[in-house]
Amino acid sequence: MTDHPSLLAALAAVVGDAHVLTAPDDIAPYVADWRGHYPGIARAVVRPANTAQVSEVVRLCAAAGVPLVPQGGNTGLVGGSTPDDSGREVVVSLGRMTALRRVDPLDNSIMLEAGCTVLAAQEAARACGKLFPLSLASEGSATIGGVLSTNAGGEQVLRYGNTRELALGLEVVLADGRVLDALTTLRKDNTGYDLKQLFISAEGTLGIVTAAAFKLYALPRHTVTGWVALSGPQAAVDLLAMLTDAVGERITAFELLGREALDQVLAHPLDGMRDPLGSGYPWAVLFDVSETSARLDPSEAVEEVLAEALERGLASDAALAASGRQAQEFWSLREHVPEAQRLQGPSLKHDISVPIASIPAFIEAADTALRRAMPGIRIVCFGHVGDGNLHYNQSKPAGMDDASFRARAPEIHDIVHGIAAGLHGSISAEHGIGRLKQDAFMRHKAPVALDLMVRVKAAFDPDGVFNPGRVLPPARPLSRS
Amino acid sequence: MTDHPSLLAALAAVVGDAHVLTAPDDIAPYVADWRGHYPGIARAVVRPANTAQVSEVVRLCAAAGVPLVPQGGNTGLVGGSTPDDSGREVVVSLGRMTALRRVDPLDNSIMLEAGCTVLAAQEAARACGKLFPLSLASEGSATIGGVLSTNAGGEQVLRYGNTRELALGLEVVLADGRVLDALTTLRKDNTGYDLKQLFISAEGTLGIVTAAAFKLYALPRHTVTGWVALSGPQAAVDLLAMLTDAVGERITAFELLGREALDQVLAHPLDGMRDPLGSGYPWAVLFDVSETSARLDPSEAVEEVLAEALERGLASDAALAASGRQAQEFWSLREHVPEAQRLQGPSLKHDISVPIASIPAFIEAADTALRRAMPGIRIVCFGHVGDGNLHYNQSKPAGMDDASFRARAPEIHDIVHGIAAGLHGSISAEHGIGRLKQDAFMRHKAPVALDLMVRVKAAFDPDGVFNPGRVLPPARPLSRS
Repeated sequence: MTDHPSLLAALAAVVGDAHVLTAPDDIAPYVADWRGHYPGIARAVVRPANTAQVSEVVRLCAAAGVPLVPQGGNTGLVGGSTPDDSGREVVVSLGRMTALRRVDPLDNSIMLEAGCTVLAAQEAARACGKLFPLSLASEGSATIGGVLSTNAGGEQVLRYGNTRELALGLEVVLADGRVLDALTTLRKDNTGYDLKQLFISAEGTLGIVTAAAFKLYALPRHTVTGWVALSGPQAAVDLLAMLTDAVGERITAFELLGREALDQVLAHPLDGMRDPLGSGYPWAVLFDVSETSARLDPSEAVEEVLAEALERGLASDAALAASGRQAQEFWSLREHVPEAQRLQGPSLKHDISVPIASIPAFIEAADTALRRAMPGIRIVCFGHVGDGNLHYNQSKPAGMDDASFRARAPEIHDIVHGIAAGLHGSISAEHGIGRLKQDAFMRHKAPVALDLMVRVKAAFDPDGVFNPGRVLPPARPLSRS
Repeated sequence: MTDHPSLLAALAAVVGDAHVLTAPDDIAPYVADWRGHYPGIARAVVRPANTAQVSEVVRLCAAAGVPLVPQGGNTGLVGGSTPDDSGREVVVSLGRMTALRRVDPLDNSIMLEAGCTVLAAQEAARACGKLFPLSLASEGSATIGGVLSTNAGGEQVLRYGNTRELALGLEVVLADGRVLDALTTLRKDNTGYDLKQLFISAEGTLGIVTAAAFKLYALPRHTVTGWVALSGPQAAVDLLAMLTDAVGERITAFELLGREALDQVLAHPLDGMRDPLGSGYPWAVLFDVSETSARLDPSEAVEEVLAEALERGLASDAALAASGRQAQEFWSLREHVPEAQRLQGPSLKHDISVPIASIPAFIEAADTALRRAMPGIRIVCFGHVGDGNLHYNQSKPAGMDDASFRARAPEIHDIVHGIAAGLHGSISAEHGIGRLKQDAFMRHKAPVALDLMVRVKAAFDPDGVFNPGRVLPPARPLSRS
């Protein structure tokens, strides 16, 4: 066991004095999540420069019995990457590890360090004429290590998959400091268990991802962006089926927005936004269809689908963006929903998924149950219908005070999660578990699955060095420090 | 511990007398692989009818200390699904579990039992207007459980991915008989570790897959099939890049064939096949470009690419299939390569992958090294260039006797695997490890990765009930029986 000062001195000998932060001002950006829901206390924040330093930091902390909290851009939504309030944990920030190791357009792959932002990966791919398809609101800050650890989704999952589907290989520092080199770009490698899969969505509980390789794709050359007014979620699901039939896997995004979500955005003159289709319709769908071939244009096929949807009464109105600027305006409405809801006061948030065909049933059952439980509750429903994933959020009824609304959060969460689970859905589609959803996770996950996860954790991190108490409850407290 | 007769009686009580096979004639189809390389001896072959029976069978055998060998269509190439020669192992054949549990075109998913053939899955999908994209030579016999356990690849990986990429959920019987229900069709579910990934490519060493859910895709409406004569592998890689630029992810297959492979096929008048382009060119590429939209036709884009390739001297000649029948003739040449090679006498086979850009370097280095080691050796090189995966096989030199050729197999394997590994490649791209490649696997896999795999095996199957000695060496022999 190493005592506190000598551990910090040993860490400083590895990463340099300037990269072991302990002063409150220095560590402030690292000890609370960006929304401020999980303010914590860190023993120190360590900023290694390379994989060898990460390995040494892990060895030192493991030997001292000091738990580590790996951290990327700190943009997570579930309290998975900030320290608890014990003051025992050391935050390992990967922010200095931003090397682009290789980008290869012929191999359609990119290899880069965990501290690179998603935006940096997009830009490096674009510079060689390729697409890095992960795209999410926080992409300017969210890091490669973070999106792997949470298996982030975002706006183009329908076509390109989640982060997991994009990952080809990983480099990971293990709980004993050894480095797993699974940093391959191979499309096919059937040599035993696919270990990298365990670290993806593990939220830093099994190892620290230090570098990764991803698939790249062809850049889109035409994108058709549409905004459609619909009577309800079933019409949205039907329209998705029609569009899939017409243009196949070219649908890049297919987003649903309920009236309350739209009204909240339009209530605030953010960037002078306006409804593309007047007003009064209860639901909208925003979609992108994109085509990578310069020689083929899917616009006519999309227009035919919309004409048929109008004729069949599925849609009441529809607009295609006439320019890239107008497409951005359509998307801006979607992207400002969380901010607009924040301006309305406190919100309760859910990130559920169900099989696509069950989306209408989910919305109907959850709306009914919540309105019964809390008359006047405002339901802000939007999300990635093409993935079966809804951000099904709530604002308080007019006249209710904030504290009363917040006090009923557990009850509201239970209702929403129970309905999703009853439809074979998930309580966390793309945000993860962290600390926020651990109780619900433990209640809704099958006991057999939980048992296997505990066994994996024990096999990979028997002493609980990495992110203890996140995702799974702590097996036993580290007692050496 | 249960002795031999009472174990069989207990198994018969679970699955029925008719489904515990012990007579030599009855068990013959189950105890050797289809190529006859791994003749084994089974204590019995048990054929459960459903998941509950599989669970009971596992409990009984585990309690008796009797190892189990899960088996699907028995079409594997690495000796992973047949019993060893100890006479101790019980084969669990999933062949009776062929229920189609659900097919849902709106959800783009199919859910079926492990004993269904790949062909049955394709047909069930097609019946509702969808594509189950896994396609391989053995699809009429290979089962869902088998292709999951080996993470099978096949002919459309370039576009749709390996079996792993198609799998949404699994139902698995664990080593203690419990059932892991991870049989979801959700596209997004970030609730802890993705356990299903461990069972995919585990070759039956961690659990018995009893059912699975897969993604479905839109059916292609146009397919353009081309045959191109090329000067060498670099021209093939360059042509792939041009075609990718022109038609993006529509390339469904992109296969390379060397002259020796073609000559062997054309030497035997199988189905009256003939070279689509005369003769004399050293390499050929066979590709499919397929389009799911009825409104868009990629033919012209493909023709323009071929014209440019001819103009630039990458290709010396090219033909597009004028009909579905002609496309089948092109494909028939490719598909008969293994059979034609068998008719030439003994063959040494490899299933390597390297990053796509390294394919020319691999072929040059391996050709040179093999010709030096064995002058006159005939190199039958073909495979999935678009995936970086080559079946790089050898026939004996003219005049060498079979036994002398076979005796040098270890040396030839070492040369080929060493060159693949040196180029950051894999010694098993799509066939798995089984018993055939275990030595090479242990030599070429990083020790850290091997250690983690051993930990996973110990965590999931501590007593070594499932397929001991396949993939990983046996941790310790089961000693109770």
